[in-house]
Amino acid sequence: MAYTLGEIAKFLGGQVNGDDSITISGLATLAQAGPGQLSFLANMAYKDQLQQTKASAVIVHPKQAADCVGPALVLDNPYLAYAKASQLFNTLPKASGDIHPSAVVSPSATVADGVSIAVNAVIEDHAVIGSGAVIGAGSVVGVNARVGKNTRLHHNVSVYHDVAIGDDCIIHSGAVIGSDGFGFANEKGQWVKICQIGGVTVGHGVEIGANTTIDRGAMSDTVIGDGVKLDNQIQIAHNVEIGAHSAMAAGCMIAGSTKIGSCCTLAGGVGVAGHLQLVDGTHVTAMTLVTKSITEPGSYSSGTAMSSTSEWRKSAARFRQLDDMAKRIKLIEKSLKE
Amino acid sequence: MAYTLGEIAKFLGGQVNGDDSITISGLATLAQAGPGQLSFLANMAYKDQLQQTKASAVIVHPKQAADCVGPALVLDNPYLAYAKASQLFNTLPKASGDIHPSAVVSPSATVADGVSIAVNAVIEDHAVIGSGAVIGAGSVVGVNARVGKNTRLHHNVSVYHDVAIGDDCIIHSGAVIGSDGFGFANEKGQWVKICQIGGVTVGHGVEIGANTTIDRGAMSDTVIGDGVKLDNQIQIAHNVEIGAHSAMAAGCMIAGSTKIGSCCTLAGGVGVAGHLQLVDGTHVTAMTLVTKSITEPGSYSSGTAMSSTSEWRKSAARFRQLDDMAKRIKLIEKSLKE
Amino acid sequence: MAYTLGEIAKFLGGQVNGDDSITISGLATLAQAGPGQLSFLANMAYKDQLQQTKASAVIVHPKQAADCVGPALVLDNPYLAYAKASQLFNTLPKASGDIHPSAVVSPSATVADGVSIAVNAVIEDHAVIGSGAVIGAGSVVGVNARVGKNTRLHHNVSVYHDVAIGDDCIIHSGAVIGSDGFGFANEKGQWVKICQIGGVTVGHGVEIGANTTIDRGAMSDTVIGDGVKLDNQIQIAHNVEIGAHSAMAAGCMIAGSTKIGSCCTLAGGVGVAGHLQLVDGTHVTAMTLVTKSITEPGSYSSGTAMSSTSEWRKSAARFRQLDDMAKRIKLIEKSLKE
Repeated sequence: MAYTLGEIAKFLGGQVNGDDSITISGLATLAQAGPGQLSFLANMAYKDQLQQTKASAVIVHPKQAADCVGPALVLDNPYLAYAKASQLFNTLPKASGDIHPSAVVSPSATVADGVSIAVNAVIEDHAVIGSGAVIGAGSVVGVNARVGKNTRLHHNVSVYHDVAIGDDCIIHSGAVIGSDGFGFANEKGQWVKICQIGGVTVGHGVEIGANTTIDRGAMSDTVIGDGVKLDNQIQIAHNVEIGAHSAMAAGCMIAGSTKIGSCCTLAGGVGVAGHLQLVDGTHVTAMTLVTKSITEPGSYSSGTAMSSTSEWRKSAARFRQLDDMAKRIKLIEKSLKE
Repeated sequence: MAYTLGEIAKFLGGQVNGDDSITISGLATLAQAGPGQLSFLANMAYKDQLQQTKASAVIVHPKQAADCVGPALVLDNPYLAYAKASQLFNTLPKASGDIHPSAVVSPSATVADGVSIAVNAVIEDHAVIGSGAVIGAGSVVGVNARVGKNTRLHHNVSVYHDVAIGDDCIIHSGAVIGSDGFGFANEKGQWVKICQIGGVTVGHGVEIGANTTIDRGAMSDTVIGDGVKLDNQIQIAHNVEIGAHSAMAAGCMIAGSTKIGSCCTLAGGVGVAGHLQLVDGTHVTAMTLVTKSITEPGSYSSGTAMSSTSEWRKSAARFRQLDDMAKRIKLIEKSLKE
Repeated sequence: MAYTLGEIAKFLGGQVNGDDSITISGLATLAQAGPGQLSFLANMAYKDQLQQTKASAVIVHPKQAADCVGPALVLDNPYLAYAKASQLFNTLPKASGDIHPSAVVSPSATVADGVSIAVNAVIEDHAVIGSGAVIGAGSVVGVNARVGKNTRLHHNVSVYHDVAIGDDCIIHSGAVIGSDGFGFANEKGQWVKICQIGGVTVGHGVEIGANTTIDRGAMSDTVIGDGVKLDNQIQIAHNVEIGAHSAMAAGCMIAGSTKIGSCCTLAGGVGVAGHLQLVDGTHVTAMTLVTKSITEPGSYSSGTAMSSTSEWRKSAARFRQLDDMAKRIKLIEKSLKE
């Protein structure tokens, strides 16, 4: 994989300041780049590195073009340009374009042309696989499930029956889509299972991280909107709905029937209680527990700041006395007034 | 799958007010139900929906029977009745009842009659599979492991050697049972592995969620009691014991050697430190960290409530000053007394 | 598996007080041990059990040798001795030493002598498997990936392309190594994928727990140092670096580009924000959120202590009033001064 800087500029729609005939064979940060590599300046905290970088060329905003010592690829949004350039240097192995002899495809399944089905993958009865889809080694597509066009399931993905996945999705290894929601009725201290007869609908352009789990709905479907990005180790409970283009970092846990709006971002380890609604444009900081609906866009948090354990112990002990402290302040104020 | 309302009433042991000959082909909430669907009223917050629902019939408590506009299926516990009715409409595909030619079953394994072993599943040496059990595609049952009668392993489940799983269990995709407990001794700054030579004992009627992990014991077994329900993404460390009919929501992390009583409930994301004991009937709210044993049944919590991030920052900064604030209150009280 | 006490003493380099010809066939705690079992006293809280134990012999420090009622195996570090003794009683099934006919090994892969490749395992193009390595059933080693000598992948492990794993590692079931880092640029409200073209480098002697995920780097590699021990359900984001001999308990989530030093310990459920540096010898208590770099070795914490939910509610409500309380204390102090 190597391109001239001019070819990359054409692909990205940018201008080159300097020699556009140089060869670029990779991407790297300003600090780590060497000869033959293209870098970018997106965060002004690294602006000083423009002088020292050994990158053969740098993607910069017009304002920084003059600061580059070597060739500059000038674009309004360097980070977006880097994202697009990364596609030129993708190391992801090409799929085979055929069905490996060890794969087991049900005679009742519908598999479009140009589908890759890897070693030991399983396509169960009545499943439908769209054109250009890639099913990784050991992955299972359950009865009556659908995988859209150009969607890629990496290795060892589990898709249960009646799950519908849209086009252009990426599902990472170990992800499980369509497992039973956690629903039980209690009868004299014992749990009676509520069969989860809904499915899961995943939109187009969705990415689902490694070992993330999405439960099927109790009666109707769990719904993941178009363009949603889910990191690794996330849990989406039954009948959750996630609006288009929302993103969640690793370890988020969303409880049942909660509706998250579009263009929301949840940082890592966020928990959201069940049956809540989060308005479009909600942002939640890491490891926050959301226990009530959010009706105004903005940023929300819970938890405490980190200290040394010895300092923290004092604060934690006082936390339990907070109500008492508040009452004593009120008493003092009253006595001062008198 | 379609039944008359009368057939469903007979199955559930309830009475029909109205026409019991109507056909029911599915279940839905009061708000989402349409013609041909059966709904239920379990939460009085939704009582007003009885008037508007398009459900063909509704499961209600005797007190609400008169409020139904159409046929009512009257039972003392509508939520439990719904749970039982859900079994009539289960969409889970029937297992094959045989062993797929691609499955690899050790000649030394014991497989009872009526067992289903799906594509590419693996049954290792000396494993024992009880009658009616279902082993999903790509699942592995390790050396000397036991899977009880009518237990179902969904796709891509990993069961290590010497793990014993009881009857009537459900194990979801990606679950791992019997991985090594996290045990090391430190020798001059390096970690020396403690081989985990215990196993895991899972009782009868247990459900284990997708991508949940249960470690084998260090010397004796990790033990999951009868009727325990574990949601997705849970971690059970070595030598934990969980009492019968306890339930945990997604993301709980239970550290080593802790004993959780029976009929406990842990909400999502709860952490429990090691070597603790939680009495029967303990309930813990979401994302609480339990750092000491609980000797009285009841509900327990930690953490802080959510605010806007800007408000939260002020509280979080003050949290570190709590000890100082408490001391100043005391000084003020003293000076006022004087 | 049975040894004389003398054989075990020789293996561990310790002295026997009493009859060294007795047969030892297993290990157990002081409280649970029976005849034929060897126990150990490492935690002085259990010292009184030395009198009651039914163990046939006990590993003790020289200071406790006189307190044993039966034979004692005397060593300076009883816990380390127990760790080493556990290797004598390991129940882990021996690997086959050959390649199962159902495994699919690319003709372009390089597989050393004495490698075990289990049922339905997959070795993709140009992968390299070192001598003595064990690849469990259903595990996949991706294109151009490397697995070092004597490293064991348990069942259903997923290793992506271009991942390099060192010698003597243990990777548990469901672990995913090399999935895409969570990187996107935003273009008019939609997420544009940044292809993750780095890999993952895992050192020697590393243990990776069940269902733990390690993402590949964005441009350069994610790096796990020698001797690192990762428990289950951990998430390591792209370009994280973890120093040698650090250990993390279950559920830790490390965000992108963070560098964790060597000999650090993170308790369960710890979150570390991105782009931070944690100095060598950092220890973090359970479920703490680390939001800034740590430059001094020591122990760090966040969160609040657990209470009954009713008590906790009062403190949580007051937490939101903390800034107001602090200001009122200041006002009172001012008015008292005046």
